Amino acid sequence: MIAGIEAGGTKFVCAVALDPQTILEEIRFPTTTPEETIAKALNFFMEMQEVHGPITSLGVGSFGPIDPNPGSPTYGMITSTPKPHWENIDIIGVLKESMDIPMGFDTDVNGAALGEYLWGAGQGLDVVLYLTIGTGVGGGVVVHGKPVHGLTHPEMGHIAIPRGDDRDSFAGVCPYHGDCVEGLVSGPAIAARAGRPGQDIPAEDPGWDTVADYIAQALCTYICVLSPNRIIVGGGVLGQEHLLERVRSLVLKKLNGYIRHPFLTPEGISQYIVAPGLGTKSGVIGAFALGLRAARES
Amino acid sequence: MIAGIEAGGTKFVCAVALDPQTILEEIRFPTTTPEETIAKALNFFMEMQEVHGPITSLGVGSFGPIDPNPGSPTYGMITSTPKPHWENIDIIGVLKESMDIPMGFDTDVNGAALGEYLWGAGQGLDVVLYLTIGTGVGGGVVVHGKPVHGLTHPEMGHIAIPRGDDRDSFAGVCPYHGDCVEGLVSGPAIAARAGRPGQDIPAEDPGWDTVADYIAQALCTYICVLSPNRIIVGGGVLGQEHLLERVRSLVLKKLNGYIRHPFLTPEGISQYIVAPGLGTKSGVIGAFALGLRAARES
Repeated sequence: MIAGIEAGGTKFVCAVALDPQTILEEIRFPTTTPEETIAKALNFFMEMQEVHGPITSLGVGSFGPIDPNPGSPTYGMITSTPKPHWENIDIIGVLKESMDIPMGFDTDVNGAALGEYLWGAGQGLDVVLYLTIGTGVGGGVVVHGKPVHGLTHPEMGHIAIPRGDDRDSFAGVCPYHGDCVEGLVSGPAIAARAGRPGQDIPAEDPGWDTVADYIAQALCTYICVLSPNRIIVGGGVLGQEHLLERVRSLVLKKLNGYIRHPFLTPEGISQYIVAPGLGTKSGVIGAFALGLRAARES
Repeated sequence: MIAGIEAGGTKFVCAVALDPQTILEEIRFPTTTPEETIAKALNFFMEMQEVHGPITSLGVGSFGPIDPNPGSPTYGMITSTPKPHWENIDIIGVLKESMDIPMGFDTDVNGAALGEYLWGAGQGLDVVLYLTIGTGVGGGVVVHGKPVHGLTHPEMGHIAIPRGDDRDSFAGVCPYHGDCVEGLVSGPAIAARAGRPGQDIPAEDPGWDTVADYIAQALCTYICVLSPNRIIVGGGVLGQEHLLERVRSLVLKKLNGYIRHPFLTPEGISQYIVAPGLGTKSGVIGAFALGLRAARES
């Protein structure tokens, strides 16, 4: 039996499975303090082992920034996160104390990108970008079949974008950069600007045009820098279909025909910027994949 | 004997070698019409074959956009370039008519990134970004040992960036996007803003602060999206040492400590944003590497 944790900044999803695409049992709970949250995950896995037998690998896809480099002294830790209590938390270290099995560790979005590459909307593609726009904004990338880390790991939500000639005066909510993309279009940013949560803002509110413009600007940047074969967008914000449609046409408008591909046309764009093939399960199924890879390499 | 072409928008560099790191003979000439320019390259190689014996592979690193996907009907072509006469030019097709040998084809910057990964400042690194800021602005990326193409190939110079609160009024020179990074900080952009070429502008001119700010903004975006292990900068513009120093400190200021790594510190940054290990030869040596890979795979 394999196990996975999608360790999000808002909630943890823990699951076990025999085959990574078929979840056997799953539990979700809010992310509180590290002690409490990690203990809950461990309790769930202990219970599962009693019912279903031993767990042979565990993958953790975590909110970040994290240290995913196995050669580093801070490997397995959540590092410079602005999330209270979670800075410098050795999540893999704590899990290893209770479970002596191969463990994979990566960002939640790299995990989701890997899940989508293996079994979802990114199957067999050379460059797969999984983007989440929800509590935060983050991107994971699989290139040539493997997640990308480089110096640390991508932090795509933290790019700066132009705010247009009709710059709105909103200062943004990112504690590090103010009006980076995460500071402008994450769920909390949308709520802070509008004074009410996104799901309560009607589709015809002009504020959505601003949000769509910023998201499209960010996607154009990711397209120019990474040239993804497909952009898979999860998280709550683009779950609003009217917003997704606006973003798709703004992306074409901003690229202005410079990059030519059948996907970058009014007919093709809905196959290019897409919802996750694994629905809301990309993260936890991706975590299984991280664990399985770790087991194979151990 | 192996051959390489660094097909730049301003000049072509053609070279032959027995060992990719040691150029045997090299020729440089301006990029004029496709017919004339490609003929000059072919003449050089014919001459070299008479003197040194047969050429066994050819690599071409080209300005773009290009189609580097061997499965595509437009493979080997320069596609939507704004450069007059060069749109939809089948450069590999024309070369193949005269030379029936394995040929590799990629962007000039992907070629240079591969050269730097194999023998230069990016040796053995997981994510190598080679950036050129000169006649144009472009970036090539090698991830997990192979150049990145994805949908087409990266077009890093064409990202939009915020222009700051003291927005200068310069409209930018990119025919597709106006004030994208290439439109703002390429050599021609710097000259258009100042009314004189960059090499004639003294280091204390305040215009350099604006240029440094834009370049640093672009580098921060590349860091957040790609997480390169090292950024290697070629091209004329950052050859001005005072500008490189300003860019390095502005990058740290803008990232604001969010991404933690010894390279992203005042002590480490000069090892992170660096000049090419192969000097001005990254492009043509990278072209050799493209040809050698093609020969190995044929």
